[in-house]
Amino acid sequence: MTDRLKIGVLGASGYTGADLVRLAARHPNVEIALATADSHAGKEMGEVFSHLARLDLPPLTRWQDADWSSVDVIFCGLPHGTTQEIVAQLPADRVVIDLSADFRLTDPETYAEWYGHEHRAAQLQGEAVYGLTEHNRAAISSARIIACPGCYPTAALLALLPLAAGRLVDCDQIIIDAKSGVSGAGRGLRQNTLFCEAGEGLRPYGIASHRHAPEIEQELGAVLGRPIVVNFTPHLVPMSRGELVTIHLALAGGARVADLGAALARAYAAEPFVHVAGAGTVPGTQDVRGSNDCLIGVYADRIPGRAIVVAAIDNLVKGSSGQALQNMNVRFGLDETAGLGQLALFP
Amino acid sequence: MTDRLKIGVLGASGYTGADLVRLAARHPNVEIALATADSHAGKEMGEVFSHLARLDLPPLTRWQDADWSSVDVIFCGLPHGTTQEIVAQLPADRVVIDLSADFRLTDPETYAEWYGHEHRAAQLQGEAVYGLTEHNRAAISSARIIACPGCYPTAALLALLPLAAGRLVDCDQIIIDAKSGVSGAGRGLRQNTLFCEAGEGLRPYGIASHRHAPEIEQELGAVLGRPIVVNFTPHLVPMSRGELVTIHLALAGGARVADLGAALARAYAAEPFVHVAGAGTVPGTQDVRGSNDCLIGVYADRIPGRAIVVAAIDNLVKGSSGQALQNMNVRFGLDETAGLGQLALFP
Amino acid sequence: MTDRLKIGVLGASGYTGADLVRLAARHPNVEIALATADSHAGKEMGEVFSHLARLDLPPLTRWQDADWSSVDVIFCGLPHGTTQEIVAQLPADRVVIDLSADFRLTDPETYAEWYGHEHRAAQLQGEAVYGLTEHNRAAISSARIIACPGCYPTAALLALLPLAAGRLVDCDQIIIDAKSGVSGAGRGLRQNTLFCEAGEGLRPYGIASHRHAPEIEQELGAVLGRPIVVNFTPHLVPMSRGELVTIHLALAGGARVADLGAALARAYAAEPFVHVAGAGTVPGTQDVRGSNDCLIGVYADRIPGRAIVVAAIDNLVKGSSGQALQNMNVRFGLDETAGLGQLALFP
Amino acid sequence: MTDRLKIGVLGASGYTGADLVRLAARHPNVEIALATADSHAGKEMGEVFSHLARLDLPPLTRWQDADWSSVDVIFCGLPHGTTQEIVAQLPADRVVIDLSADFRLTDPETYAEWYGHEHRAAQLQGEAVYGLTEHNRAAISSARIIACPGCYPTAALLALLPLAAGRLVDCDQIIIDAKSGVSGAGRGLRQNTLFCEAGEGLRPYGIASHRHAPEIEQELGAVLGRPIVVNFTPHLVPMSRGELVTIHLALAGGARVADLGAALARAYAAEPFVHVAGAGTVPGTQDVRGSNDCLIGVYADRIPGRAIVVAAIDNLVKGSSGQALQNMNVRFGLDETAGLGQLALFP
Repeated sequence: MTDRLKIGVLGASGYTGADLVRLAARHPNVEIALATADSHAGKEMGEVFSHLARLDLPPLTRWQDADWSSVDVIFCGLPHGTTQEIVAQLPADRVVIDLSADFRLTDPETYAEWYGHEHRAAQLQGEAVYGLTEHNRAAISSARIIACPGCYPTAALLALLPLAAGRLVDCDQIIIDAKSGVSGAGRGLRQNTLFCEAGEGLRPYGIASHRHAPEIEQELGAVLGRPIVVNFTPHLVPMSRGELVTIHLALAGGARVADLGAALARAYAAEPFVHVAGAGTVPGTQDVRGSNDCLIGVYADRIPGRAIVVAAIDNLVKGSSGQALQNMNVRFGLDETAGLGQLALFP
Repeated sequence: MTDRLKIGVLGASGYTGADLVRLAARHPNVEIALATADSHAGKEMGEVFSHLARLDLPPLTRWQDADWSSVDVIFCGLPHGTTQEIVAQLPADRVVIDLSADFRLTDPETYAEWYGHEHRAAQLQGEAVYGLTEHNRAAISSARIIACPGCYPTAALLALLPLAAGRLVDCDQIIIDAKSGVSGAGRGLRQNTLFCEAGEGLRPYGIASHRHAPEIEQELGAVLGRPIVVNFTPHLVPMSRGELVTIHLALAGGARVADLGAALARAYAAEPFVHVAGAGTVPGTQDVRGSNDCLIGVYADRIPGRAIVVAAIDNLVKGSSGQALQNMNVRFGLDETAGLGQLALFP
Repeated sequence: MTDRLKIGVLGASGYTGADLVRLAARHPNVEIALATADSHAGKEMGEVFSHLARLDLPPLTRWQDADWSSVDVIFCGLPHGTTQEIVAQLPADRVVIDLSADFRLTDPETYAEWYGHEHRAAQLQGEAVYGLTEHNRAAISSARIIACPGCYPTAALLALLPLAAGRLVDCDQIIIDAKSGVSGAGRGLRQNTLFCEAGEGLRPYGIASHRHAPEIEQELGAVLGRPIVVNFTPHLVPMSRGELVTIHLALAGGARVADLGAALARAYAAEPFVHVAGAGTVPGTQDVRGSNDCLIGVYADRIPGRAIVVAAIDNLVKGSSGQALQNMNVRFGLDETAGLGQLALFP
Repeated sequence: MTDRLKIGVLGASGYTGADLVRLAARHPNVEIALATADSHAGKEMGEVFSHLARLDLPPLTRWQDADWSSVDVIFCGLPHGTTQEIVAQLPADRVVIDLSADFRLTDPETYAEWYGHEHRAAQLQGEAVYGLTEHNRAAISSARIIACPGCYPTAALLALLPLAAGRLVDCDQIIIDAKSGVSGAGRGLRQNTLFCEAGEGLRPYGIASHRHAPEIEQELGAVLGRPIVVNFTPHLVPMSRGELVTIHLALAGGARVADLGAALARAYAAEPFVHVAGAGTVPGTQDVRGSNDCLIGVYADRIPGRAIVVAAIDNLVKGSSGQALQNMNVRFGLDETAGLGQLALFP
């Protein structure tokens, strides 16, 4: 075990933290040396998540009681706003892989506008690297703080970045109709995530006001070299895991639908986790449940000059904990797929 | 019982037929006098649908054995293509309320293109009236053949017709991102509607090729006086009932988002079943499960000059059997809400 | 409206309260004159339950602010323990129909043992009548306080009482393996009723310690004339509504399995809501979703001398609000089925 | 790859076959060299199961076209009745691990009674070894034909065998109330496994007539040295994966409830996949989804002298494909946990 990376998981009592533990516990190069969960400090992880009860894990502690010298990498799955304060107090030579939203937005004003308070570690905001692995590998490989993308931005940007980069679509008319399973809302107690409320029904939420919109806009804007605004319309779907974005696009610059598919195929030809769906197949979240895969499909619209691009991920894996480990692999020069080989669980 | 309308239900062994029976059995002015189901002829309805076993219903027969003189109104819930042949053989003075797609498209060529064969009762196609009750009451009230809209067109057109009529939106850029529960696919045995396939996952289907697209286009085109083409992108959602359309629209003619809401509120002010959601609320299929309601909400997009309109129905009620009974009520001068007062079942 | 019974619903913000409103709003002899919900006082019911937003209802108030003179009947859907204090303060000529557990147990010691505190209105405990309609009609018809049974006891006792009365089974070896949808746990925020926790999984809970056990034992004991103890093992099932008890029984006194079926058929021959399943059919909760029905089936065990009895109800209807209205109908001499004619919603 | 065991999967188009492929594809000592699926011969596995589309697998063939020389081990996931004919034709030196029911019952008469025809390879029936790994390791390690237990018998026998062996319970009064997810019924098209039929509801099936009953009885009878009969009452639960048995038992021979827990703890102390739940915890299928674990809990009944034992597994893993690979590991002297380390997927 001595050669293994020692990781700490802050906020291990959420779904994201649990899925990180699930994957990290089987990662060949990782040892889970620290796990915090303030409200459950003193408990074993298996008391909080019974499916993890057979693992040999350190007991849960308060983050204030953590011995940072025991870990090489710190994963933060804390509520938004908390992470920035903690990261500012960490030893400066610890790699931080943040699953919260705290370091995703690089502009302090945008952060303050969307999160309702000034950033409490603005000096670190600039240092953080956006952790969309496939599009930011070089920076990730030497970053100290890696801000893992939100689940929706992961799916949306994997589908959109190559199209925006190629100027193949009108980026001022991007419509992202998004659908998520309930785990995206976390394990906190909320009425709308009760079984009886979310079950057997579908409802949009956060229309034109979801915090993942500015994140998508920031990354697309960086590629375009100018600010843009997108439609982002999420829906809560009666399933636990899975996220699908249906992106409605106007073609630009003379591009045809086939050009979109070709651009995506080219962009991801060598990628282990991002796949362009073959002709006649349509991605579903069923295809990626529990895996780190992202599936993308491109389809002609009935309206001439338009296309539909669909992307499916598991929101807790590629949309969160899986991508976080993928970033760790990149950062520490490990095989990028290490610990992420789980196939989708179907049915 | 003698004053009651005697109805026949053809195709009573499908979900649509069963829901028609569920509602009609409690309709104060209706007697179910005939029910057919070819593959189950000779059985009791309760053997085919155990939730209806406590009703006093006629035994199921083959439609060829039906005594048409016993009924005043004939509801057809038969597979597409079958209805037209049967209707052509019925006594000309029987009112037909068709829940299939056979008489929805009025243009023979469009029908042939989308259904793969020449219409077998083209002479009746022109006679049929499109049964979107709220928008076609006058014609319905004296029609002999009423073609009830598809489930998706019901939701989409209730949301779109007032906006198209008012030239408030760009009808050449209508994007209908639609989501349906599994009952929309019927009770036939299909792999993709098995619990294990449709459960815990979400997948688009029929992208740019679903037969409800030309139906929406026909009715919008009639209002506009010219042909149009729409984006129609349905998804299969892990729930049994419920349908939600999320319509992405570009404003036109100087309209503001508030004008859309006002136009819809005006159009449906006196309607018993169509409701515009109040500020701060978002329609969900949970709100209409089992009821004949349609809820519509209007929201500003983040992209300037665009709006998002959401409509939710129960696909088997307002999207099929409920609307069929509503049309019967209109046709026979009954209280339009008779038999349709069931509140949504939640949770 | 003047001839209608004016009802008050205390605790209208729970699932039980909402389902009572759903049914009462369509009851031909009822006017909802009062609705309380402490934490939502001042809101409209439609803000708390969007599926009820189209009803014309009084605004929610605190129960302390209720004008009791405005109502003839008071339905209590309050948390256990609260009801007894309120009922003690009500005008003595108001009929109280209690959906909580406060007046189900008649023995003060048993109450204190299972609910952890002395009963705060012990003088009223004796006055309360156990509201299992089919077995207690005479007492209900003149009661001032009607204690509606718990959901599980409703299903279990409807199946067991005729068998116990006929000494057909060994009442010292009754095994009640029970399964409930999640709505049985109420709308309060609890981790185990989140969609992600209860979905796609099944787990027993409250083994040998659920409060519905003493209630079942009390009523069976009353029939037998001696105290008994039963096995009661509930499970949480990933569905919103529905409850099914699978009762494993040893035959007694020379009874055969057919005798059990005959006893049940005899007991419920004239009942509008309790039905014995025909040969070859097995009750499922799908058959009763949203209806006031209880279905019971009797089956031979493979072990000689044993039988299996299955009963299915909708826990929110026959298991709670529907039975409460049924009791009101009995109490006020109305048609017992008034307002309870809704057929099961399937699928 | 040359050192890997080459396996063939017959019947790869069922859920069991797919889950075997999912696990085997990540097994460090296995190469999938052959996969058959008669109705899909010529297709790629990824066309039949889209979640497996990124694997490099041999194309599906008819079993008649299989080159048996290419494989060391043959897994049969074929419909009951088919396997026996195929196995009879295989080279006698190939190890067969059968996931069907064909070789589970050792008595030809019992087989004929429950499966409706004479066994077609009765000479092999005696040769087959019952593959409940934890209880039959020695025989499995040298068997040519390993008959993997049914999913229900796996859970039931893991819970019951140590208790029966210790004469701790009355084996003539064993009541197994069982609950299964829908995948247990396979991928074939059946009305009762449609999403709309199995969703949002619970129903018993196969009461006193399910084919897993004689299998449980056979294995318990072998331990007891005499034939027994058990109550086995399965229910179809609205989830895809997971199986839970709730076993109601009368204590025997002076045993106390704690003795049952101790006997189970002793029996499985060294087992990697079978775990006795700690005090205060109750197994749920959520704890084992996708994993090869079996969790067992023991609880006192309210009825004196009785106990309740609960066991949870994933029906497709420990209940089928996972146990099959576990048996392969035992048979070929591999690490018994190889390829089976996947933690449960929760939520």
